[in-house]
Amino acid sequence: MARWQPGTRERLQQVSLELFGERGFDAVTVAEIAQRAQVTERTFYRYFADKREVLFDGQDTLVHAFVAGVGEAPAGLSPLELAAAALDRAADFFADERRSWSRARQSVIENDPALQERELLKLAALSAALSCALQERGVSNQRAGLAADLAVSVFRISFVRWIAAGEQQSMRELQRDVLETLQALTSS
Amino acid sequence: MARWQPGTRERLQQVSLELFGERGFDAVTVAEIAQRAQVTERTFYRYFADKREVLFDGQDTLVHAFVAGVGEAPAGLSPLELAAAALDRAADFFADERRSWSRARQSVIENDPALQERELLKLAALSAALSCALQERGVSNQRAGLAADLAVSVFRISFVRWIAAGEQQSMRELQRDVLETLQALTSS
Repeated sequence: MARWQPGTRERLQQVSLELFGERGFDAVTVAEIAQRAQVTERTFYRYFADKREVLFDGQDTLVHAFVAGVGEAPAGLSPLELAAAALDRAADFFADERRSWSRARQSVIENDPALQERELLKLAALSAALSCALQERGVSNQRAGLAADLAVSVFRISFVRWIAAGEQQSMRELQRDVLETLQALTSS
Repeated sequence: MARWQPGTRERLQQVSLELFGERGFDAVTVAEIAQRAQVTERTFYRYFADKREVLFDGQDTLVHAFVAGVGEAPAGLSPLELAAAALDRAADFFADERRSWSRARQSVIENDPALQERELLKLAALSAALSCALQERGVSNQRAGLAADLAVSVFRISFVRWIAAGEQQSMRELQRDVLETLQALTSS
């Protein structure tokens, strides 16, 4: 039996994404993933609850980064500045070496309506968590809801740019650019 | 066999909502709805594809109102003004006599996770349709995506206020108020 080995999680993720890309998410079994990664199925389940979790595994980390970005921001910031701090903090998650993984992941998700729904629910949960974090910093309910939705919109639109073919700018740069566009849009 | 009668659709909606509220969405059958509305099941299916559609029947009308609001706005408006025109147009959908139905509907949805997911998907589809409509008015892809997300956020937050107990303001007034809050939020 394969024991815990450094890099097993990453290998399982890599192999899963290859298989999903080759044959579609639905058609791939955990047995096939385990076989190609040269581990047992049991080892797979030590890392992931099911094959879908291979794709959505980072969700908690991402939400945590947004919430921590708000919680750790200095005092005296406006709701929008708090949202910008959350976006900056979350950008650390999208290091350049993650870009090709994110591209391949997105392509799998775009080919499967159920995964697209899951992705939308993920963004809604992110907005709700961010709204709570803003309220804990004293932002009123309504403003917190708006600022959280804005941040998620900026995040989503920046992410699409970040994974576009040939894009070189970092997630942080893109988010700042989109946030500026948003401010120009609403100041008219 | 019951033939088409004026008000049958409305009676089916009313009776469905009563039953969903009494016993939960999942537990209610189309047979029960038809029985209480004193029509045949076949009549029910002449109006709705299934019991879920009783709740989501207005979706196409709402999306159409948003899109028409953009399409019919005068020339020379900014993206945000186009979004505001869409919101105003959609507000007509939420006449005061609809408020108690909307409250009861919301309470059914909040008690059923699958219906909540459906509601989120509905809002995502609305944002996508609105973004397309804005692009047809010459707004760039990125600005259209942002403005559409903003409008849906304003709509969602205003709707929660509109159905709150004791709320008297119209959907149009609430949306304008939330849009102003949004502008104040992003101008800092």
